[in-house]
Amino acid sequence: MYASRISRLTGSVAREILSHANNKDIISFAGGLPGPEAFEGLEVSIEGTGSFQYGPSEGDQRLRACFAKRFQEKGIDCDYSQVLITSGAQQGIDLVSKLFIEPGTHVVLEKPTYLAALQCFALFGASFESISLNADGLDVDELDEVLGSKDIRFVYLSPSFQNPSGICYKLEKRKAIAEVLDRHEAVLIEDDPYSELNYAGVATDPICSFLKRAQWVYLSTVSKILAPGLRLGCLACSEAFFPYLLKLKQASDLHSNRLSEAIVLNWLEDEAMMQARISELRSIYRAKRDVMAESLDRHFTGLADWDIPKGGLFFWLRLKSTASIRDLLQCTLERGVAFMRGDPFFPQSEIGAGYLRLNFSNPPIESIDSGLKTLGEEIRLMFPVLEKSN
Amino acid sequence: MYASRISRLTGSVAREILSHANNKDIISFAGGLPGPEAFEGLEVSIEGTGSFQYGPSEGDQRLRACFAKRFQEKGIDCDYSQVLITSGAQQGIDLVSKLFIEPGTHVVLEKPTYLAALQCFALFGASFESISLNADGLDVDELDEVLGSKDIRFVYLSPSFQNPSGICYKLEKRKAIAEVLDRHEAVLIEDDPYSELNYAGVATDPICSFLKRAQWVYLSTVSKILAPGLRLGCLACSEAFFPYLLKLKQASDLHSNRLSEAIVLNWLEDEAMMQARISELRSIYRAKRDVMAESLDRHFTGLADWDIPKGGLFFWLRLKSTASIRDLLQCTLERGVAFMRGDPFFPQSEIGAGYLRLNFSNPPIESIDSGLKTLGEEIRLMFPVLEKSN
Repeated sequence: MYASRISRLTGSVAREILSHANNKDIISFAGGLPGPEAFEGLEVSIEGTGSFQYGPSEGDQRLRACFAKRFQEKGIDCDYSQVLITSGAQQGIDLVSKLFIEPGTHVVLEKPTYLAALQCFALFGASFESISLNADGLDVDELDEVLGSKDIRFVYLSPSFQNPSGICYKLEKRKAIAEVLDRHEAVLIEDDPYSELNYAGVATDPICSFLKRAQWVYLSTVSKILAPGLRLGCLACSEAFFPYLLKLKQASDLHSNRLSEAIVLNWLEDEAMMQARISELRSIYRAKRDVMAESLDRHFTGLADWDIPKGGLFFWLRLKSTASIRDLLQCTLERGVAFMRGDPFFPQSEIGAGYLRLNFSNPPIESIDSGLKTLGEEIRLMFPVLEKSN
Repeated sequence: MYASRISRLTGSVAREILSHANNKDIISFAGGLPGPEAFEGLEVSIEGTGSFQYGPSEGDQRLRACFAKRFQEKGIDCDYSQVLITSGAQQGIDLVSKLFIEPGTHVVLEKPTYLAALQCFALFGASFESISLNADGLDVDELDEVLGSKDIRFVYLSPSFQNPSGICYKLEKRKAIAEVLDRHEAVLIEDDPYSELNYAGVATDPICSFLKRAQWVYLSTVSKILAPGLRLGCLACSEAFFPYLLKLKQASDLHSNRLSEAIVLNWLEDEAMMQARISELRSIYRAKRDVMAESLDRHFTGLADWDIPKGGLFFWLRLKSTASIRDLLQCTLERGVAFMRGDPFFPQSEIGAGYLRLNFSNPPIESIDSGLKTLGEEIRLMFPVLEKSN
């Protein structure tokens, strides 16, 4: 009765976890939500009746120009005619899937990768080639080999403070990847929601800013720098892709929310105000990251390995055990703590069984230590062998 | 390089026409836009920071309950757990396409049907069975025969003041169709954006309110009763469909715009305010419809046939000629008048070559007569034989 893609439809994990995040009695490290303090004093003003009518599918032209300017400042060669306003960056992923994927289409992903992209690509029938992600970025030789040996439709990368790993590709790695993509003329889908949340001033030049021949789509959003409730994202792309993505957008929801377009335009037109907000968010989240780093040292030493992320919203922990943590969440929830299992971030979920993703932006800063203490205790109870073996 | 569905991607006609509608020098009968007077005094208030955060994919629970109550009052057996908030009704069409359609899937449509549904269904690869639409609704015998002879995935109907035809199915016809759908256990997708814009008090009971066994999806929106810029729609469905549509929604854009959810909730919770607004819209649009009816008598008698719509936003004209009007739009645009060609509303566009759709809600009431005079003159110039033969 249903289309065959429905057999590939997943999605309950992230939803389940968002529902915990909204429970006030739970300390949630599970979601990827901004902290409530990020919205204090956030003002939205809507310009009169201009926002009520149907609008163009590509979005407000002034808003497209604002995004184009921001992207140019990052080194991306584009103008407003290549910019499409979307209903959150997730819609960019849906549109890219519609443009490129049919059952059996090969796409390259990072291992691990963003779970909602994985779900969307899988829904449309993609077959996955996963490439190792090291501390300095994607393994370039593996990428070169895969592109040389298989018919790959596109390469999906999130090089700046990736969700879930927090990894930020080194600048030289970005350039090397661009060179490989150019040589194979492989399409790059670059997902960049977190680059503004940069706590260490590291380079976040988009890989697509280094491309010379390869075609590309660059996905962005205001969810992390303004508010996710606005559901306002945007993509820029190679000229050849634009007419298709525009028509796909029209078929998906006609156009994006015009109130949000007007609100975001007000913000982006005032660069000083925007820069002040981003600085404030960096300082709020950097402080929370630092508290989590200290608490992890206190409660997780010997239990897991991790790096301190230089940006973004997540710590990514690898347990010193290959035991599955699928049952751990139920135990910690009973004690009022939620976290995100690592396995949904891998196309082959068994690979991710020993990983946890911990968000530091959303929980109250004063709850981070007690939450991690509880989590550490539960892990020790579940895997007593871990500590003894270290 | 692209997915094969891209070869089926259309969509330029409606976009082209919306761009004319935004040109102040054009009298546009082309779009399906509310009149600007519908937004005068429309107030939107946004409740504080509660709207900034990520939200549930299914939408705000109080808002879902408001919609469920409205649908129950229409006779639909559903509660809030069957209601999904969408980014406009168009997203409901996208989600339904994802749930049911793959290349070769047979779906039943009205002839003519809503062009953006046609585009979306075609994109996903549907094969169309079109059924004649008479003044009192769909031909029931034809429906019965098609359902009995083919493997039909769903039947897509818009029984109340359909876009483009303006036809409102008679009550007995609605019941007879429900009986046929029940007998074949065929899935009904009922699209109902216009039923509140009822200028004659005719029955608009949803067909799905009469179903006993057949499963259904009911698509609704606030675009016509509040504002399309809010991009806030909603669907209700048989319980079995809900978990799939919810996950498909999540993969499409995570959740709908929360500012719009808060604004619409404020409106729907105040039933008296909402009823007053709908009454006002009815009176604004009824007056415009009446002016258009008189102007058509004046300028189109002998040129075309039409019925006076009892609701909705459109007149649907059949020229007294089978000549194509594909070239007419360019001529009338040069004289400052836009209209919508009929052919994109048919799966086989040649059938629609002799039809025009004229919108009366958006043009200024004082421009309707002069615009139709110009349009009539251009048609006479293009098809001089028409008048002589009558």
